[in-house]
Amino acid sequence: MSIAEKIRNIAADARQAAIAMAKLSAPAKNGLLLAMAGSLVRNTVQLMEENRKDLEAGEVKGLSAAMLDRLMLNEARIKAMADGLREVAALPDPVGEVTRMWTRPNGLRVGKMRIPLGVIGIIYEARPNVTADAAALCLKSGNSVILRGGSEAIHSNLAIARILGEELNRAGIPGAALSVVPFPEREGVLEMLKQEEFIDLIIPRGGESLIRFVVENSRIPVIKHYKGVCHVFVDADADFDMAEKIIVNGKVQRPGVCNALETLLVHKDIAETFIPRIAESLTELKVELRGDDCVRQFAPQAQKATEDDWHAEYLELILAVRVVDDLDEAVAHINRYGSLHTEAIVTCDYHNAQRFIREVNSSTVLVNASTRFADGNQLGLGAEIGISTTKLHSFGPMGLEDLTTTKFIVYGDGQVRQ
Amino acid sequence: MSIAEKIRNIAADARQAAIAMAKLSAPAKNGLLLAMAGSLVRNTVQLMEENRKDLEAGEVKGLSAAMLDRLMLNEARIKAMADGLREVAALPDPVGEVTRMWTRPNGLRVGKMRIPLGVIGIIYEARPNVTADAAALCLKSGNSVILRGGSEAIHSNLAIARILGEELNRAGIPGAALSVVPFPEREGVLEMLKQEEFIDLIIPRGGESLIRFVVENSRIPVIKHYKGVCHVFVDADADFDMAEKIIVNGKVQRPGVCNALETLLVHKDIAETFIPRIAESLTELKVELRGDDCVRQFAPQAQKATEDDWHAEYLELILAVRVVDDLDEAVAHINRYGSLHTEAIVTCDYHNAQRFIREVNSSTVLVNASTRFADGNQLGLGAEIGISTTKLHSFGPMGLEDLTTTKFIVYGDGQVRQ
Repeated sequence: MSIAEKIRNIAADARQAAIAMAKLSAPAKNGLLLAMAGSLVRNTVQLMEENRKDLEAGEVKGLSAAMLDRLMLNEARIKAMADGLREVAALPDPVGEVTRMWTRPNGLRVGKMRIPLGVIGIIYEARPNVTADAAALCLKSGNSVILRGGSEAIHSNLAIARILGEELNRAGIPGAALSVVPFPEREGVLEMLKQEEFIDLIIPRGGESLIRFVVENSRIPVIKHYKGVCHVFVDADADFDMAEKIIVNGKVQRPGVCNALETLLVHKDIAETFIPRIAESLTELKVELRGDDCVRQFAPQAQKATEDDWHAEYLELILAVRVVDDLDEAVAHINRYGSLHTEAIVTCDYHNAQRFIREVNSSTVLVNASTRFADGNQLGLGAEIGISTTKLHSFGPMGLEDLTTTKFIVYGDGQVRQ
Repeated sequence: MSIAEKIRNIAADARQAAIAMAKLSAPAKNGLLLAMAGSLVRNTVQLMEENRKDLEAGEVKGLSAAMLDRLMLNEARIKAMADGLREVAALPDPVGEVTRMWTRPNGLRVGKMRIPLGVIGIIYEARPNVTADAAALCLKSGNSVILRGGSEAIHSNLAIARILGEELNRAGIPGAALSVVPFPEREGVLEMLKQEEFIDLIIPRGGESLIRFVVENSRIPVIKHYKGVCHVFVDADADFDMAEKIIVNGKVQRPGVCNALETLLVHKDIAETFIPRIAESLTELKVELRGDDCVRQFAPQAQKATEDDWHAEYLELILAVRVVDDLDEAVAHINRYGSLHTEAIVTCDYHNAQRFIREVNSSTVLVNASTRFADGNQLGLGAEIGISTTKLHSFGPMGLEDLTTTKFIVYGDGQVRQ
């Protein structure tokens, strides 16, 4: 059988298994996830043996020490993976929830009920814990899942899938509800992206080049985000202490992630007082500044910003800084250069806070809080399967509910259409 | 300028105009729609003159009488179009609605607020009233819209867009918020489908071949449905009078539409009593029956059904009929042959009603009511921009809310991430 045929079979079987998954009760799904967690821990030795094959192959291939570390599984990491499954088991089950119900003049009662999407494909890079995390979220939301991890982690991923799959079998659920694509070749990804008949959604997780490859080759809807160029706007009325805390947290706490701060906008009325202060604090924290002429007047250590800086997702200790005339100019800058990810205003002005919330249509918009909160766990979704910066289906951090859709349900007493 | 460049400009301008559209208040949008309605009526003569050009070209091309009738605008139809705009003005504005709000342990208040999608492209066939209807729904939900109607209606569509566009200008809104692609060539559609940078969603409305063309060539998310193979399952416990009313309504009232009944499933315990009765009623109404062997035993007038009949969307007075052992077999048949559109059960059994609602994951699932209710207006959405049988973003009849997405909004007091 060719790779294409095998992938097609995996996808077709996942579609069949999705029918069984959709019918499972919440206690059945939770029991399954808890059993999977126990099984991962019990199979620690076996899992580390398989992981060793990946590590050895990685060394031969010359992977960096950082890459090898991401790939490595030890007892603590396997326990953390199992704990992750238990946390998902403890989350509320979105399936079957009737989100609204209303009555029509003819007596029909019409509602919307959450149902699983069906089959979800996850395409990701190195870290093998994603295999367990993503599988848990998809199964909990009543879906089948097809996982295609990085070729560097293939032995680890297959071993995790085998351990979890045994628990599916024990529970009488078709094993095809969870599969790992067993081909390290890129052809495996390409074939997967063609199975629009069987797969409902593709979620790529990884660097921009992986995501672009998936988007360009997929016939299946893809939920993705390319990058996060997040802004903080410090309004004329801002509390300077609060602004400083929020800016430092956004830029310095974890600069390599998509919700880190990349561009600071400062109202012109406070440029003279606020910019020297924040520039000094950031310089002490080893943040390199790139500013417009007005910024450099008050912060001589800043480099001159170019057009590229307004577009940049640095992901390191560099911050672009610009002075704007007012809220309108701040919003216009964000509309022009933003990535629809996350933006915050720091202000004590009620009307400007409400206008910013209303007029900035990024996926997360904050008042007086750090951009670092743009995260499924931080916002209270209980878990995060990804972040979407496209507006269709989901926009922003995605939790279990984003792996469902709704159907219309109608209760009648024999009504027919006139 | 080439067609490609012109289309790109239309799309880029629509994206800019979407920023202005998103900020409009509900009263401003409603006033705009009412002004547009008045203007359509005032321009009746001019509109009929432009329509005449399409009709004359259609006659030269040899369009059928039915096609020419669909194309034709008269005073009554123009008034109906204006009334449609007024009805959309009267609907609630979905934009700005906060659908949920919760508080995190650190005091952050997190909510989800509805915002417009941005720029919506509608690709449709002959009937020029779609130009006004679709424009009204997109504008009311705060979006820009790019319309590409059939080449047969190009003069009518451009005239409607010009009349509506004058009201945009009068209200100080960029005219690019509403445009009609002025090229009858198919190249116009193809170029439109490439503008993923500027267009957020494509909705094709028309026959299956148009929809397949759009899906295969679009880089932009497409919401569509190909067909409706709708089922009614008559359970052992059904009220026969109710079942007959629902079946006749589903099959006969308007057989050419996607929510018409195509396959009837009958529980084996009532086959002997119910099938002769319903077969007689349907035969009297000139419905041709195609049944399995068991059906033909009780309804000798039925043709023998082939595998194709279970897949068929007849859109005419033909009905496929099958006897099934129980609810499980009915659900399995629907899972195998259905199109995820609409299915109904007729039953007096509480548990079977609930199981059918829960286990059948088509976009509309009904108990004791006609499949013909699967329609945005009938279900109470106030309007319908289309029906989706794909599960991403929207599933089933789509109203104004389906032309929006939600962003996260966060109100803080200086919180930073630990």
